[in-house]
Amino acid sequence: MSKSHNQKKTAGRIEFGKRLKRKRKEREYTQEVLAEKAGLAPNYVGSVERGERNIGLENIIILAKALAVSPKEFMPDRE
Amino acid sequence: MSKSHNQKKTAGRIEFGKRLKRKRKEREYTQEVLAEKAGLAPNYVGSVERGERNIGLENIIILAKALAVSPKEFMPDRE
Repeated sequence: MSKSHNQKKTAGRIEFGKRLKRKRKEREYTQEVLAEKAGLAPNYVGSVERGERNIGLENIIILAKALAVSPKEFMPDRE
Repeated sequence: MSKSHNQKKTAGRIEFGKRLKRKRKEREYTQEVLAEKAGLAPNYVGSVERGERNIGLENIIILAKALAVSPKEFMPDRE
């Protein structure tokens, strides 16, 4: 893992990652299975779940589709 | 405006942009006022509203804070 995406675990990233992981576990998918369904790399999915990535809108939507949920489910509540 | 971010107006980007614009108008903010509150460039806010950007999670959260809404409000429903 490069350090470049590992430095800034902001509250928003961490909350997003927790929500993604919770939904993935509900579906009983491994990171590998989710990655396969989404067409993304397993390491990428892991790094998003750990709050290491400033994930873009496109991938948010792709992951939501792969889990058959609304992208809203991943987003933190209003602060 | 560079062409680099103007090529792929995906359905998700367009929906996000519409929702952002609607909420901004509800607050009666110009793009300039919203940009100022969010600490972002006015041109950037405009390009997001037009669906030209794959906006990242951090900026989604920043814009939500500037509009005092949940980031959920910007996200499309499940497809």
